Amino acid sequence: MNNKQDLMDKVVSLCKRRGFIFQSSEIYGGIGGFWDYGPLGVELKRNVKEAWWRDMVTGHDDTTPPPGMPSAYAMVGLETTIIMHPQVWKASGHYDLFHDMLVDCRHCKARFRADQLQASQCPLKPSKHPGEHTTCDLTEPREFNLMFKTYVGALVDPESEAFLRPETAQGMFVNFKNVLATARVKLPFGIAQIGKSFRNEITPRYFTFRSREFEQMEIEFFCRPAESPQWYAYWRDRRFQWYVSLGLSSERLRLREHGREELSHYSCGTADIEYAFPFLPEGEFGELEGIAHRGDFDLRSHMEGKLVRQGDELVVELGPDGKPRHPGSGKDLTYFDEETQERLIPHVIEPSAGVDRSVLAFLCEAYAEDVVPDENGVPQPRVVLKLHPRLSPVKVAVFPLVKRDGMPEVAMDIYRELKRHWNAFYDEKGSIGRRYRRQDESGTPFCITVDSQTLKDGTVTVRDRDTTFQERVAAKELVAFLREKLGPL
Amino acid sequence: MNNKQDLMDKVVSLCKRRGFIFQSSEIYGGIGGFWDYGPLGVELKRNVKEAWWRDMVTGHDDTTPPPGMPSAYAMVGLETTIIMHPQVWKASGHYDLFHDMLVDCRHCKARFRADQLQASQCPLKPSKHPGEHTTCDLTEPREFNLMFKTYVGALVDPESEAFLRPETAQGMFVNFKNVLATARVKLPFGIAQIGKSFRNEITPRYFTFRSREFEQMEIEFFCRPAESPQWYAYWRDRRFQWYVSLGLSSERLRLREHGREELSHYSCGTADIEYAFPFLPEGEFGELEGIAHRGDFDLRSHMEGKLVRQGDELVVELGPDGKPRHPGSGKDLTYFDEETQERLIPHVIEPSAGVDRSVLAFLCEAYAEDVVPDENGVPQPRVVLKLHPRLSPVKVAVFPLVKRDGMPEVAMDIYRELKRHWNAFYDEKGSIGRRYRRQDESGTPFCITVDSQTLKDGTVTVRDRDTTFQERVAAKELVAFLREKLGPL
Repeated sequence: MNNKQDLMDKVVSLCKRRGFIFQSSEIYGGIGGFWDYGPLGVELKRNVKEAWWRDMVTGHDDTTPPPGMPSAYAMVGLETTIIMHPQVWKASGHYDLFHDMLVDCRHCKARFRADQLQASQCPLKPSKHPGEHTTCDLTEPREFNLMFKTYVGALVDPESEAFLRPETAQGMFVNFKNVLATARVKLPFGIAQIGKSFRNEITPRYFTFRSREFEQMEIEFFCRPAESPQWYAYWRDRRFQWYVSLGLSSERLRLREHGREELSHYSCGTADIEYAFPFLPEGEFGELEGIAHRGDFDLRSHMEGKLVRQGDELVVELGPDGKPRHPGSGKDLTYFDEETQERLIPHVIEPSAGVDRSVLAFLCEAYAEDVVPDENGVPQPRVVLKLHPRLSPVKVAVFPLVKRDGMPEVAMDIYRELKRHWNAFYDEKGSIGRRYRRQDESGTPFCITVDSQTLKDGTVTVRDRDTTFQERVAAKELVAFLREKLGPL
Repeated sequence: MNNKQDLMDKVVSLCKRRGFIFQSSEIYGGIGGFWDYGPLGVELKRNVKEAWWRDMVTGHDDTTPPPGMPSAYAMVGLETTIIMHPQVWKASGHYDLFHDMLVDCRHCKARFRADQLQASQCPLKPSKHPGEHTTCDLTEPREFNLMFKTYVGALVDPESEAFLRPETAQGMFVNFKNVLATARVKLPFGIAQIGKSFRNEITPRYFTFRSREFEQMEIEFFCRPAESPQWYAYWRDRRFQWYVSLGLSSERLRLREHGREELSHYSCGTADIEYAFPFLPEGEFGELEGIAHRGDFDLRSHMEGKLVRQGDELVVELGPDGKPRHPGSGKDLTYFDEETQERLIPHVIEPSAGVDRSVLAFLCEAYAEDVVPDENGVPQPRVVLKLHPRLSPVKVAVFPLVKRDGMPEVAMDIYRELKRHWNAFYDEKGSIGRRYRRQDESGTPFCITVDSQTLKDGTVTVRDRDTTFQERVAAKELVAFLREKLGPL
């Protein structure tokens, strides 16, 4: 496909048609920036999260140093709440600093992101950008905090104000001491979390790419300051390879190191893993994951209070009364290094990935159109999702060729046996060609067909999604055959 | 243990000590009604959800009618957003009706649930209940909506008001048509969802039992009205058996059918699955899951608007202008039954379970203290979590007896092999007895020890958590041995 917008439209249409992604509250006209996952989408998303959790946490070998690295490391999981104590966001800086600059039009009352005026439409003259014609009357840019606010408890007052987290990261920092105390981990070690986050985006757009409710997969990796540049490089490269291992092609994927001027004031290195999403102009990339060296910024903030830059140093911001403007917890979040007998604040490497963006990239990458022979040998165009088997919502579908002669019963027996191992699907409706095409569009790697020969010799046909190549396999060998083909999931 | 409060204190203490559950934002003094899951807790909670999803959704055989039931059924998953279009909650009735009655004290400014005055303390005289002494000046009970409110978009006004969902259920009803259109399901069929919900409880309490942010596992099962009583009984019994199958003992678990007077006005049957939590007085039970026959209430509400009872009928509530006070979507949510050639609104059975409450029940049930011989044969008291293997955070731990003679290397090789199949844990620190006791407290079903005999004949000891019985098994047989013992996970 040459036309990128065309590809994007096709992916969005497939998502709706096959039940991957729906607009939230669609029957009520939808709600901007919120998306639901349908029956196939929820399995795809679960598989992305499960692959991450298994590769990063439960499957991680904490006895073997990664190649070239000074030591092995432990990785533990955590699940913290979406609503936390509001002081967390004051000390972290999100309360003061997590905002967009907005511009209002006094004439038409519309609101725009100051950095996106050229990409926005005037509601009254949609062919123009805001400010481009005489009736526009724009304000100076003003700050708008992106955290959703609510109130906990019966009273609506500043005391009970709370926020929906805009990232899962802070939940891991405030539990640093709890993890140290209970999991007996030593530096270096990581904490991993998957969960929903919320940002009140002014202009949610690009399908699920920029939405207001989204899910993150984040790691906070704690290490000795001297080793932190090496661990930064390790995580940057490892996370890039993770996407490659699940099927994103290196030509659409890139690793971009931030320039000095792009870095947060506390960071000595940040890289983005980016994907050339089809909704973007040619040559542009969208962020899938950021890997940031965050120094001791976060743990220090939660000890001492909100930090600001003073020359080359980070210092606690003071209020008019000379006390910290947004105090930290006052708790000791240092680490005692038994090897060196030193007390230190660990440095942090943070690989922070978006689940929804990953799902969208995997869908865009997998979408393909080709022409393959149908059951009568006639070439037919088809749509196929060439998803990595670990990500495929359904791993194998089982069909009786016809709905008689005992074929359904044999096929159901096979389905039930396969179901013990994988998410299997049974289908007896419609022509065999239609059933194949449905599974192609769902990304199912293998289809099994029971036909009259099965009744004679106990073999079935196994059809490969990508090649459409069919081979006969003994039904009793199917589990071993598929285990070999699908690989570890 | 005779003393229930004593048991509860021990479970809470173990949760904190071993990293199952922490208070949210603990270093900032916590936030009432919010709890975090630590490294072991997150795995336990994931296992509960995974068992439910596998047993209800991906492992469900949709070709075989359950014993005694008229037909097989399909079950599909869904994941909808926490913030939905606000009209969803107006049509569903939650906007008007989902509230507690609250009483304020004009004197001390404290707020109480009207139905819990006898269980509350006066802040000024903690030995008394509110209203029990002369300085109390209580208001009449007033309604307080339990939904957390926020604003979507840049403006804080009634137009942009939105709510954090108090249940995942409505996301499934508003997607009924999308599921029908994309998953090609026929009645009866179910939609399943796991996700966070939020209720602004006035008095969160009993550890994680009544919290403000919690997770649900809900099914909406759609069927023909005539068959609905039979499916109600099916789900009630099936869901009860699910808890039994994962280790809750029948003496602490009970199924309680609601009396006529307890039923919602639209329900013709509701049952609660309840557990005798140790924080409750002797003989009292707390709800784990509710199974409700909801008739056509929900689909009708989302078609026509908020329903109210008029005599024996449900009718759309009208506003002063004679139009529906809270209109529905106006979309057709009926189902065309090809078998009977009839158009109908399906009836709904809703099994709605709390993930956090299930986790808490499994922990309370699993907690045990006994006396077992240590490595020198001396009887020692221990704490052990007798969790079902499917739920255990770690399935197997591997220890070298001593940190020399090549034992760690052999043990690490075994650990790496087991890690390919299960969440395995390697530990070489401390005495072997301490390492066993740590795993007992974590609920790990099996511990493998590599000793000097391993180096000679390739066998290891396998210790059973519950019996502490040890047997020697060839290291190369371990995967098969454990697969047999652990069963399908």
